[in-house]
Amino acid sequence: MAHSVRPWRPAGRRFCCVNSGLNFQDLMVRLGAIDSPPKTPTIMGFECAGEVEAVGEEVEGFKVGDRVVALPEFRAWSELVAVPTKYVYHIPEEMSFQDAAATVMNYLVAYILIFDLVSLREGKSILLHSVGGGVGQAIVQLARTVPNVTIFGVCSKSKHEALAATGLIDHLIDRADYVNEVRKITTEGVDVVLDCLCGEECNRGYGLLKPMGKYILYGSSNVVTGETKSFFSVARSWWQVDKVSPIKLFDENKSLAGFNLRHLLYQQDGSAYVTATVEKIFGLWKDGKIKPVVDSAWALEDVAEAMQKMHDRKNIGKLVLDPSMEPKPKPATPAKTKNKKQASEDKSGKKGGAGSDKEDDKKSAENGENGEKKEGEEAAVEAKTNGDAAEEGAAAAVNGDSAEKKDEPAAAAATNGDATESEKKESS
Amino acid sequence: MAHSVRPWRPAGRRFCCVNSGLNFQDLMVRLGAIDSPPKTPTIMGFECAGEVEAVGEEVEGFKVGDRVVALPEFRAWSELVAVPTKYVYHIPEEMSFQDAAATVMNYLVAYILIFDLVSLREGKSILLHSVGGGVGQAIVQLARTVPNVTIFGVCSKSKHEALAATGLIDHLIDRADYVNEVRKITTEGVDVVLDCLCGEECNRGYGLLKPMGKYILYGSSNVVTGETKSFFSVARSWWQVDKVSPIKLFDENKSLAGFNLRHLLYQQDGSAYVTATVEKIFGLWKDGKIKPVVDSAWALEDVAEAMQKMHDRKNIGKLVLDPSMEPKPKPATPAKTKNKKQASEDKSGKKGGAGSDKEDDKKSAENGENGEKKEGEEAAVEAKTNGDAAEEGAAAAVNGDSAEKKDEPAAAAATNGDATESEKKESS
Repeated sequence: MAHSVRPWRPAGRRFCCVNSGLNFQDLMVRLGAIDSPPKTPTIMGFECAGEVEAVGEEVEGFKVGDRVVALPEFRAWSELVAVPTKYVYHIPEEMSFQDAAATVMNYLVAYILIFDLVSLREGKSILLHSVGGGVGQAIVQLARTVPNVTIFGVCSKSKHEALAATGLIDHLIDRADYVNEVRKITTEGVDVVLDCLCGEECNRGYGLLKPMGKYILYGSSNVVTGETKSFFSVARSWWQVDKVSPIKLFDENKSLAGFNLRHLLYQQDGSAYVTATVEKIFGLWKDGKIKPVVDSAWALEDVAEAMQKMHDRKNIGKLVLDPSMEPKPKPATPAKTKNKKQASEDKSGKKGGAGSDKEDDKKSAENGENGEKKEGEEAAVEAKTNGDAAEEGAAAAVNGDSAEKKDEPAAAAATNGDATESEKKESS
Repeated sequence: MAHSVRPWRPAGRRFCCVNSGLNFQDLMVRLGAIDSPPKTPTIMGFECAGEVEAVGEEVEGFKVGDRVVALPEFRAWSELVAVPTKYVYHIPEEMSFQDAAATVMNYLVAYILIFDLVSLREGKSILLHSVGGGVGQAIVQLARTVPNVTIFGVCSKSKHEALAATGLIDHLIDRADYVNEVRKITTEGVDVVLDCLCGEECNRGYGLLKPMGKYILYGSSNVVTGETKSFFSVARSWWQVDKVSPIKLFDENKSLAGFNLRHLLYQQDGSAYVTATVEKIFGLWKDGKIKPVVDSAWALEDVAEAMQKMHDRKNIGKLVLDPSMEPKPKPATPAKTKNKKQASEDKSGKKGGAGSDKEDDKKSAENGENGEKKEGEEAAVEAKTNGDAAEEGAAAAVNGDSAEKKDEPAAAAATNGDATESEKKESS
C-alpha cells in the first residue's frame, strides 16, 4: 500500500503504519473500562509496525526508512503515526511488519511475567488463563524455553483440539470448572498462576498455589462480560477480589504480584526497561526460540468484527490489522433487514462459501445490536473519525459499524493529527 | 568436649551437637510468640552441627562419623540430637562446625529471598532491616554477588561504624527515621524491600517501592518489644498491617511476598527444596563468595545472656552456642542481693576484669528481673530440663536463669529423649 503524507511539525518521530496489533486492552478502551480513558474523539490502538516516514529535529538513533515497531499511547490504528522515540524499537531485518506487530506487546507481557516476575525455574508448574490468546501463546513459548516445565492451559473447550495440536501445553483445561480439573491432576496445586481475568479468579488462583507459589494478576478481562460496559460487572470484579495481608503471605509462603504494561509505560516511566526487554525478545526471535502465532489479519475497516472475535474469545493467537487489506464486503442496509439483502448478495456471488456467510451473518447481527445499545453512554468512547486528521488527508473510522450508522466514510484508515500532544512532550 | 551416649532406638539419625545456632526465632519461641509453640517442657533450638553418632536402620546417605549440620524442629541445643534425615546436610570437608552452625539457617533464608523470591538483578536497589544481624549479613554478602546492586541497610546507629568498616553496604540508615532517610537519598524509592520486622514496617516498606518493586516479609521481630510476650504488641503488629488487593498490585506494578522457613520445612514439606538450596550455599562458600559473620560463641548454660544480647539487638552477625565452652562464672545467689555477693566473688579472684564485671552485672540484673516477670504465663513456654532426657543421661536446661530459680541442675547440655516422635515419623 502506497502512503502519501505531508510532513508534520518536526518533533518526536512518525512512521507509516503497515500493521497494527489488536489487544484485549483495546476492547477495554472501547468499553471505557480502563482507569484513564482517552478524550474522544480519538484513534485507538497501542501497537503498530512500519517504516519511518519522518523524524523530529532532536531525534537520535532513528532515520527515515528505518523499519520499526512502536507502542504509542493510543492512535496506533492509522496509516501514519507520530510516536515519542522512547516507545519505538528497531525490528530485526528479517522480521516482517506483521510479525513485528504480532510480537512486541504480547511477548513483552509474557517475557516480563515469566522471566522478571516469576523467574520461572526448571521443574515448575504453571497455570495460565486464556492460553489460546496472543499473550497466552507467547507465555507458552517462553515457558517452554525453561526445561521440564508443566503447563496447565485454561481456555474454552472449543479451542482444545487446535491447541493440543501445537504439542506445547501439557494439560488443556476447560474454563468451566478449572479448579477441580487442576486438582484432579495435581492435588498439591501449581507453582505459578498467571491471571488475566481478575474477579473471582484472583481468589481461586491464589488457592491453587503450592507453598512458595506465585500468583500474578496481569489483566482484568472478566470486566468485559457483555457487549457494553456494565458498572456492575466492574464493581463485582472489584468486590470479588479478596484483599490479602502480608502476614498471610508470610504464613503460607506465597507471593502476589500485579503487572500492567500500560501503566508501566505511560504512567511510571518504565520505557528504558521495556526497550531493554524488547531487545531480548528480538534476540529470542532471531534464535528461533519464539514465533508469533497470528490468528488472522484484518482491514482497518473490519476492526469491529475483529474485536468481536476477540470478545467472543474465538481467536487463537494474535489479531493483526493491515491497512493495505481491502475491507470485507458488507450489507449496505441496517442489520435488521439484512437476511433478505444478504440472500441477494449471495446470488450475485460477492461473498464466499455458505459456512462463512453464516458466521458473518451472526457477527453482523451481533454488531448491529451492539451498535444500537451503544448509542447511549458507550458511544462516547468509541473511536471515530478524527476531525483534525481529516484535514490532513484520509479519514479514520476504527469502528466500522458505528461509522456506517452515522453515514460517515468508513473506507480509509487515517493519518493522525492529534498525535502532536505526545510529540510536544517528547521534544520538550 | 567428649560425648558419651548410649545408643538409641535405631530410627532416624542422631549426632553429637558440637555447635548450635541461635536465631531470632528462638526468642519468639521463648516468648511463646509463634503460631505452634512446642509442648513444654522442651529443648529449644533449630540448628546444630556435629558428627553422626548413630544412624537408624533405614537411613541412607549418612554413616557414623559423617560431619553434618541439621535443622531439627526444636531440640537442637543439646549434646546429642536425633533428626530425620530430610533435615540433615553434609558439610564441606574444610568447613568448621562453628561455621556450619553459623551458615545454614541464615544463608538459607538469605539465598531464597535474594535468588528465588526477588531474583535480584544487576543495577537494582535493595533495602533491608536488621542489616547487622545474622540474616542481614548473609543477605548483604549474597546481594554483593550481583553486579552493581545498591544496598540500603537499616539498623541502630550504634552499629553503623562497625558495619561501615565492612565496606559492603552503600547506605547505612538509622532505624529511627529510615523512610525519610531513604527518600533523601533516592526520591523514587527502591526496587526491593526485605522486612523481618512486620507491623508498621509492612506499610512503610510497600510505600518505598518503585514500580516493578518487590516487598518481602520474612519475619515479625517487631512482636518482640519487651522482655515478655505482650498480647498487645502481637495484636498491634497484626492491626498495623494493611491488607492489599491484587488489583492495587496490578495498578501499581508491585509484588508482595512472604517467606517463613519454619513453615516451609516443618509444615509444608519443603525439605527437598531446602536441601538443594543448602548445597548451593555450600558451593558459594567453597568458592569464597560467602563467609559467615560470627558475633560470638556461648556456652549452652549462657544461652539466656546470648538471647538477651540478640533481644537488645547488640549482635553483629551470628550468635553460636558451643557445648564445649565453659559457662561464665555466675553469682550463686538471687539477683537482688547480687551486688554484695559479687563484690566478695571479685575479691576471691574468680571473675575477670572490671569492665567485663560491669557488663555481667548489668546482664544479670536484667535477667533477674526478666526471670521474676516470667513466673506468670511466660514461665510455661520457657524451655526447661526435659524429664525424659534425664532418664537417658545428662539434663538440659536451655534457660540457665529459670533453672537456677528452680534449683535444678543447670550445668550440662542434654541428650534428648523426646526426639523419638520425629524419629518414628521418619522411619514409618
